[in-house]
Amino acid sequence: MSADPHQHTFAGNRLDRAGDRRDDPRWLAAQLADPRAVSIALWNGQPLLQEGEDGQLRAARLDGGMARELAAGAETLLFLGLSDEGPVLAIDLDGVADPAEGTLQGLGRFTDLRAALPALDGGDANMIGAARSLFEWRRKHRFCSVCGHPSHTAEGGWRRVCPSCGAQHFPRVDPCVIMLPVRGERCLLGRQAAWAPGRFSALAGFVEPGESVEEACAREVREEAALTVSAVRYHSSQPWPFPSNLMIGLIAEVEDGEARPDLTELEAVRWLTRSQARDLAEGKLEGALAPTRTAIAYHLIRDWAFGGDGV
Amino acid sequence: MSADPHQHTFAGNRLDRAGDRRDDPRWLAAQLADPRAVSIALWNGQPLLQEGEDGQLRAARLDGGMARELAAGAETLLFLGLSDEGPVLAIDLDGVADPAEGTLQGLGRFTDLRAALPALDGGDANMIGAARSLFEWRRKHRFCSVCGHPSHTAEGGWRRVCPSCGAQHFPRVDPCVIMLPVRGERCLLGRQAAWAPGRFSALAGFVEPGESVEEACAREVREEAALTVSAVRYHSSQPWPFPSNLMIGLIAEVEDGEARPDLTELEAVRWLTRSQARDLAEGKLEGALAPTRTAIAYHLIRDWAFGGDGV
Repeated sequence: MSADPHQHTFAGNRLDRAGDRRDDPRWLAAQLADPRAVSIALWNGQPLLQEGEDGQLRAARLDGGMARELAAGAETLLFLGLSDEGPVLAIDLDGVADPAEGTLQGLGRFTDLRAALPALDGGDANMIGAARSLFEWRRKHRFCSVCGHPSHTAEGGWRRVCPSCGAQHFPRVDPCVIMLPVRGERCLLGRQAAWAPGRFSALAGFVEPGESVEEACAREVREEAALTVSAVRYHSSQPWPFPSNLMIGLIAEVEDGEARPDLTELEAVRWLTRSQARDLAEGKLEGALAPTRTAIAYHLIRDWAFGGDGV
Repeated sequence: MSADPHQHTFAGNRLDRAGDRRDDPRWLAAQLADPRAVSIALWNGQPLLQEGEDGQLRAARLDGGMARELAAGAETLLFLGLSDEGPVLAIDLDGVADPAEGTLQGLGRFTDLRAALPALDGGDANMIGAARSLFEWRRKHRFCSVCGHPSHTAEGGWRRVCPSCGAQHFPRVDPCVIMLPVRGERCLLGRQAAWAPGRFSALAGFVEPGESVEEACAREVREEAALTVSAVRYHSSQPWPFPSNLMIGLIAEVEDGEARPDLTELEAVRWLTRSQARDLAEGKLEGALAPTRTAIAYHLIRDWAFGGDGV
């Protein structure tokens, strides 16, 4: 039934976003006023989470009245979509000094999103990720980039409009290629200086204007590791809300050659045999740390390590 | 040797964009002053083109001195990259009333890009597309979206910087899914009201924050044609400079059901058998027009029509 066999963390939307109705102000107002409406809350990019008895984290649901009371008008209120139980909203509490001191006391704890991920409910991770991307976009787009005038929110937070020049602005999604270079029975991993000691992962970079996915992959592998890509296979994709990337996961066949890190993006590269890649994925490769399972990079490495040539 | 077996129009970059060097102002100044530097020119999104004796269109090359003379400072000059013959630039002549009247007289003709595509050299289409996307981005981002202050160009046109709040802005690329829904031996095409009579094409839409490629595909097919997607296969990708999309081409298996156009994006949908799809691709389906061969949609349809189940 699922169109996405590799459903990564932050994918898995369960809401009807109602993209064809949310631009109708009357329809939207009715959703926001719906007594069944619930809202999740973010503060400085951190979701308000509750821990269940099973240890699973879920986003706290505020009732619609509380959300409208806490939100500083439409600017900080986002329409996420419709669930079977009614409208789901998100509020951005960034303007509030310490929201846990006030109305929200006892409702949960504002938690670092990356730290919470391993225990976070999948559907909630998707909602929180979408809200985080949209709030971050709003924070960086309060002014019209065409004319410099303050813009205002529209379509429940999915659009901004400039009242001076009339320009319409839509949320930004930055496509990013993330790839595992492979050559026969070996794959190449890279390491950024800022990462935890021993951590290695796939290579990655943003797609630039005027490039296909395949060209961006070849350029990044050449720039970061000095290798030539001969073929690219698509694997899967993942929305990544830091702040709003679309990670396009690829397996990149590379030609023979010496891999050299660029010493800017990557401080080191390392070839692993397929057997070492299996050990890495299972946490058994001494002195080396795999990417977190919540990142598409982990699945690229694991699927190549355990899969056949088709992966 | 090519990492991209489906090299669509607007892909096929032949330049070294020098992304790791162009942020060095001294290095960049040396490229712009290089006596070997040449520049292509755009005016209102139209490239300055020359027609060869063989009928092929190529971008006119201005020498670096002429480009610097015509450019209104760094803001309208773009560093495209390095060719074997030296640096390649682009100038944006939008501020000029009628550039064909002045210095450029006799050098070529400013031509609508879509109209020129069928006869346009591939490498030149890539350069023109990249320049068009970047100039359009610049035009829409003269002011800092964080604080409203005028921003200025950096990195040879690949970045903008706000002198007031220090924000950095990077060119925008909008990922877009474009898919052919298929069910057994039939595929579904859609038609927008604005298109030429009889024209049918693949379905398409923008990826939103918090969606994977596969989820965006399923959402768009549901919204536009009321069908449920059961599986998604990646086909290929294409940069599309109107203004700066990354088209992600997909084959979408759909479940049984009645296809209904949403009457907003699509005014009609139409099932074709594989044999009809072949005829459409070859221009032999009466009363129906395929998408242009320069668009990825054409290749999705043709490859499915002539290929096996793997496409």
